[in-house]
Amino acid sequence: MINAILASTSTLHGEDYLQYLIPEIKELYKNISEVIFIPFARPGGLTHDEYTAKAAEAFEKAGLQLKGIHEFSTPEEALRNTGGIFTGGGNTFLLVSELYRNKLMQPLRESILHGAAYLGTSAGTNIAGLSMQTTNDMPIIYPPSFKTLGIIPFNINPHYLDPDSNSTHKGETRETRIKEFHNLNSPPVVGLREGSWLQIADNKISLKGKLSARIFEKEKVPYETDTGSDLSHLN
Amino acid sequence: MINAILASTSTLHGEDYLQYLIPEIKELYKNISEVIFIPFARPGGLTHDEYTAKAAEAFEKAGLQLKGIHEFSTPEEALRNTGGIFTGGGNTFLLVSELYRNKLMQPLRESILHGAAYLGTSAGTNIAGLSMQTTNDMPIIYPPSFKTLGIIPFNINPHYLDPDSNSTHKGETRETRIKEFHNLNSPPVVGLREGSWLQIADNKISLKGKLSARIFEKEKVPYETDTGSDLSHLN
Repeated sequence: MINAILASTSTLHGEDYLQYLIPEIKELYKNISEVIFIPFARPGGLTHDEYTAKAAEAFEKAGLQLKGIHEFSTPEEALRNTGGIFTGGGNTFLLVSELYRNKLMQPLRESILHGAAYLGTSAGTNIAGLSMQTTNDMPIIYPPSFKTLGIIPFNINPHYLDPDSNSTHKGETRETRIKEFHNLNSPPVVGLREGSWLQIADNKISLKGKLSARIFEKEKVPYETDTGSDLSHLN
Repeated sequence: MINAILASTSTLHGEDYLQYLIPEIKELYKNISEVIFIPFARPGGLTHDEYTAKAAEAFEKAGLQLKGIHEFSTPEEALRNTGGIFTGGGNTFLLVSELYRNKLMQPLRESILHGAAYLGTSAGTNIAGLSMQTTNDMPIIYPPSFKTLGIIPFNINPHYLDPDSNSTHKGETRETRIKEFHNLNSPPVVGLREGSWLQIADNKISLKGKLSARIFEKEKVPYETDTGSDLSHLN
């Protein structure tokens, strides 16, 4: 049974890292002594140690210990034995490349399917979908595959942004990009706005946070779904 | 000797498709009877025929005939024999995938290096760089490689957007994304604003249009370069 929080962003404007998620983190990892942190998306040149320290500081506020996956001599075994995992944000191409290079994509998937509580933010949320093909990130590295964990039966677009009707910019809007995805691919896409998250628990996928989400299904007009909605049917 | 126009965008706000580039198109393809159009980036579900018709309509205003690469029974030979090529915008992952799938990446490169006049807009400009790794597009299809034409010794970020200082959105800015690219890669990146283009002629690469461009070099502070600048030194 999957137990997960998939958040659009780690940080809300004007808040500390993970601040708005602390109550969720406490609940998600209750009765778990140590959570494994996956820092592979490593944004902005932070080392794995620095990124882990930053996440550990936030987790301390929830009374939790965090240890980086890179600190284990046998990371695959560590994933198999842990009760909790957190994958931080950054660049999804880098995260996916590193998971494959370290042969950890499949062990991570199995650990979550076997019940390890999982938190993802941004890129860490993106990889919970069927593929990373609805990421907003730049392809700074060539991963061996775009296939990701598939612990939910659809894709996520984190940091979802509504079209700006005042913009004179001619680059594609987020909605246009997702429409292009659906020209070639069939999985639904959940446009998850900053401050929203999906909670997977009791065999249900629910939208949480204050905002609605925008759902994109192939050959359908995109639509809004209210917070609290059950998205389990989406596939 | 390379003869090319690499434009950030096909269309300016409030203008017709290619309108602002018509004088450049006339000059670039003078004395050329027929230009080959590469519609592979095919945005928004347009067919190759529909996309070619749209581009042909704009080219007519410059007194030029356009024919889609998909209309040739031997497209590789067509590229080898043509005096002019135009690659339109859309999704860069799709464009690069289709060029490789049709075994046209190398013939296209050779044709341009042998003097075929080349126009790229958006994705068609992106592929002129060393790699497609500074595209803004969504990875809607998995290409066999991120390597592109390399007719210029650096990368381009088309539709370059300055950070919005009023934004409360926590997704990465364009500048942050390019910095992430430089954490793993060394080629310089030219952030080409809409309305700007690079002209390659007489063994020189010059910035054209009304705006300055933003130049990103690994481990340097990004800087502006004025229109009219010679960028031939950048590599």
